[in-house]
Amino acid sequence: MPPLGKTLPRHGTLGSESGMTAETTLPQTALPQTAAPAEFLDAAATLLGPKGFTTDADVMAPWLTDWRGRYTGRALGLATPATTGEVAELVRLCGKHGVPIVPQGGNSGMSGGATPDTTGQAILLNLRRMDAIRRIDTTGQLAECEAGVILQTLHEAAERVNLRFPLSLGGKGSATVGGLISTNAGGTQVLRHGSMRAQVLGLEAVLADGSVLNQLIPLKKDNRGFDLKQLLIGSEGTLGIVTAATLKLEPAVAARAVLWAGVPSIQDARKLLLHAQAKAAKALEGFEVLPRHSLEAVLDYLPQARSPLEGAHEWHVLIELVADASDAERLPELAETLLVSAFEEGLVEDATIAANETQAEAFWLLRESISPAERAIGPAMQHDISVPVERMADFMDFAVPFFESEFPGTTAVGFGHLGDGNIHFHVLAPAGSDGPSWEAGDGKAISRKVHDLVTQWGGSISAEHGIGQMKRDELARLGDPAALHVLRAVKAALDPQGLLNPGKLI
Amino acid sequence: MPPLGKTLPRHGTLGSESGMTAETTLPQTALPQTAAPAEFLDAAATLLGPKGFTTDADVMAPWLTDWRGRYTGRALGLATPATTGEVAELVRLCGKHGVPIVPQGGNSGMSGGATPDTTGQAILLNLRRMDAIRRIDTTGQLAECEAGVILQTLHEAAERVNLRFPLSLGGKGSATVGGLISTNAGGTQVLRHGSMRAQVLGLEAVLADGSVLNQLIPLKKDNRGFDLKQLLIGSEGTLGIVTAATLKLEPAVAARAVLWAGVPSIQDARKLLLHAQAKAAKALEGFEVLPRHSLEAVLDYLPQARSPLEGAHEWHVLIELVADASDAERLPELAETLLVSAFEEGLVEDATIAANETQAEAFWLLRESISPAERAIGPAMQHDISVPVERMADFMDFAVPFFESEFPGTTAVGFGHLGDGNIHFHVLAPAGSDGPSWEAGDGKAISRKVHDLVTQWGGSISAEHGIGQMKRDELARLGDPAALHVLRAVKAALDPQGLLNPGKLI
Repeated sequence: MPPLGKTLPRHGTLGSESGMTAETTLPQTALPQTAAPAEFLDAAATLLGPKGFTTDADVMAPWLTDWRGRYTGRALGLATPATTGEVAELVRLCGKHGVPIVPQGGNSGMSGGATPDTTGQAILLNLRRMDAIRRIDTTGQLAECEAGVILQTLHEAAERVNLRFPLSLGGKGSATVGGLISTNAGGTQVLRHGSMRAQVLGLEAVLADGSVLNQLIPLKKDNRGFDLKQLLIGSEGTLGIVTAATLKLEPAVAARAVLWAGVPSIQDARKLLLHAQAKAAKALEGFEVLPRHSLEAVLDYLPQARSPLEGAHEWHVLIELVADASDAERLPELAETLLVSAFEEGLVEDATIAANETQAEAFWLLRESISPAERAIGPAMQHDISVPVERMADFMDFAVPFFESEFPGTTAVGFGHLGDGNIHFHVLAPAGSDGPSWEAGDGKAISRKVHDLVTQWGGSISAEHGIGQMKRDELARLGDPAALHVLRAVKAALDPQGLLNPGKLI
Repeated sequence: MPPLGKTLPRHGTLGSESGMTAETTLPQTALPQTAAPAEFLDAAATLLGPKGFTTDADVMAPWLTDWRGRYTGRALGLATPATTGEVAELVRLCGKHGVPIVPQGGNSGMSGGATPDTTGQAILLNLRRMDAIRRIDTTGQLAECEAGVILQTLHEAAERVNLRFPLSLGGKGSATVGGLISTNAGGTQVLRHGSMRAQVLGLEAVLADGSVLNQLIPLKKDNRGFDLKQLLIGSEGTLGIVTAATLKLEPAVAARAVLWAGVPSIQDARKLLLHAQAKAAKALEGFEVLPRHSLEAVLDYLPQARSPLEGAHEWHVLIELVADASDAERLPELAETLLVSAFEEGLVEDATIAANETQAEAFWLLRESISPAERAIGPAMQHDISVPVERMADFMDFAVPFFESEFPGTTAVGFGHLGDGNIHFHVLAPAGSDGPSWEAGDGKAISRKVHDLVTQWGGSISAEHGIGQMKRDELARLGDPAALHVLRAVKAALDPQGLLNPGKLI
């Protein structure tokens, strides 16, 4: 057993920082006096069988480092249970032996939330074997999925019955339903459909005491107290382990129109957003912005790629309009009207509509290649931030020159989901910088300042990627004391032993 | 000071029933040793002034009985603070003196959630003086309101800027924003817009320790842990006191079409619902059903009223389609197409479209008069229940004959929001029954059976009215142990003294 301080989340000791009274601190529930890990390991192996539990270092290795390679941890063992019942038994076993649990889905999170710490005292609980789509109800337009279902698989299953699941993101080939829920994942369709939180109609989760919270049956109205599903969504595995969910489906997309526009400033991009919302709100699925720097980086990175527009523009906007079968006929006219009116009102310098699906895909490829293209240039500090939608253009106008002048030689770029007030704000190191030492020095100072600034502007230091281990200290530093108090009090109440994903979020 | 057991919520003693481990019980935090109420009353009077605090029995009386006259309580005093700061100070004062707090909005709740108990130890905290609409943002389509803003006032303010707040209910002339949020109110527009939970973009609340949780700034994306707003919504004042909220507005309705149809069975009503969703999903704002009995009761009750259709039908359906300015032109054709196709497919026996707004209002008046019309007939047990939308027709087909045969002489009727799977299921006493004695005997047995049945069908014993004091015992009896555990653990964590609306919900 590790000393008490190592497995308990650190928030017990942070209580005094929050300015709250004594009840915010973690109850001093002693961990049970347990046998050596050997006894736990034997019991886990017996419970889960050879397909469900291993301590083989080679088998575990790929799951102990997050996909971006930022965090590497150690673990007592890797559990891959096949049923909710096995998860519940395992959680009870961990409780008995005081073994922390790190839940993991596709291991494609952005904040290290699914990587254990380096003590090697926790087990990694990967849910990828629980990958059944239990049912799809085409009348009710919903799918009941186990936590390990991969997003791409869900997309394909919905498409086969002429429906769609309206949330997508870069990691769709690995991200799982359980991980998407635990992190309240976002993506490029939040503008119209909301984040993962809005897609969950029902939920099943194993709580810290091994009981199963079964709220899978979707009720459109249910006022038996506050919404327990919403408590689990976005809690990053710190309050319970999501094992299944009932998700909302939508009618399939029957037509789409993808527009590309060049505008002189981010303020003009915002005007175009308001214009698009006024003209085509019900069809507006995505509104993404790219600064000139990002587009040029992508064009260098993808030699076959071409800019959709002839001339140079300071800002580029990618707009997607979609329609289901009931509105598909009207979509081309709607897109045309939007384009023409934007020209007439002087909102764009130039603009075009993708002539076909191939061109539409090419437009989107430019947007989706920004991250790797920027990475190819050199080290950068990346920030997934949001401010109120109406303030984001002003924020960018302030922040870009601010950071470039405070940290000479850097290049600040912001791109992404302007329609959600969510920009990925990257500050690139001066040419020739040594990555690790720059990141540890100026890079760290830059991130702190970005987070300070976002907080001053009423925004969030994590718009869609979550807190994980990456931003936990920053949340503790900048979070509203009353909000931190609630997060910590609820955590302590639902996981009094502090065994669920310790060291993450709070 | 009352004995400990009187002010602590009862859940501490129910821990063992929940099948949970010891951490579900309320921490045995002793209430502080306090001075007599006189000292508290002086301090409260000084804090809030004569406009904000009274112990005058005549002034308090109307607020101590719920509007349906089911519950009457007593209180130490009536507080009507004018600012969030005053609420926070008062909560701290109550914590210091161990005085329970019963928050109240318009006092038009359906479950006694805003009425104090009869011990007279609590103060009533009515938020009606905090009635400012702080701002309306027409670009962002949102309104920031204090808790005491009356729903009707918000409707009118939104209409003045060509927007609307898309939630309405019978008590709109008294119901306040704070009460609507605390009970997650529903109404007739949930089908399209969701319940109150879906309208809240931001929230401000005073927590049990007097700290203020300020989440008023709406962020479309914010992943700093689970959603704290959602924790407060529907918690009936047991976790904190909602003092303000930022609410979503929608474009104003530019056109509406109200249809009335007669169908032979509730199963046919359900087929018509699916048809309406397929043909007019984006315009479908309401889908209400009335059995023949309810319509006849209304026609007896309102002598000037006429049935919209000539012949007799076992079931009646009221459908509302709406459009904003962008779709208004298409609406008449859409309604016509829906009507004609329903006839062609044999889904209706008869149907009509309201010729004008006067007739549309007359159709709605029939629906809204069911409750008083049924009450005029005699005593009845009323149940606000939901099951999964696709099962409600089957539920009704089972439940109506079941109750009428188990309790001879009764008449069972269900009416309301079929599109939400939410029916108001009333069982009317046999003719000539004495109200109070029937309610205490057979009536009580009927309600228990209704709740048993709904639970077996995977539904909710409270669809939209909340738990309050009326259904608290039933929730404890029938709730999923894991769900009750979470409700109680969170309550104990956020209100360790048990002073926030004791005796309600949990």
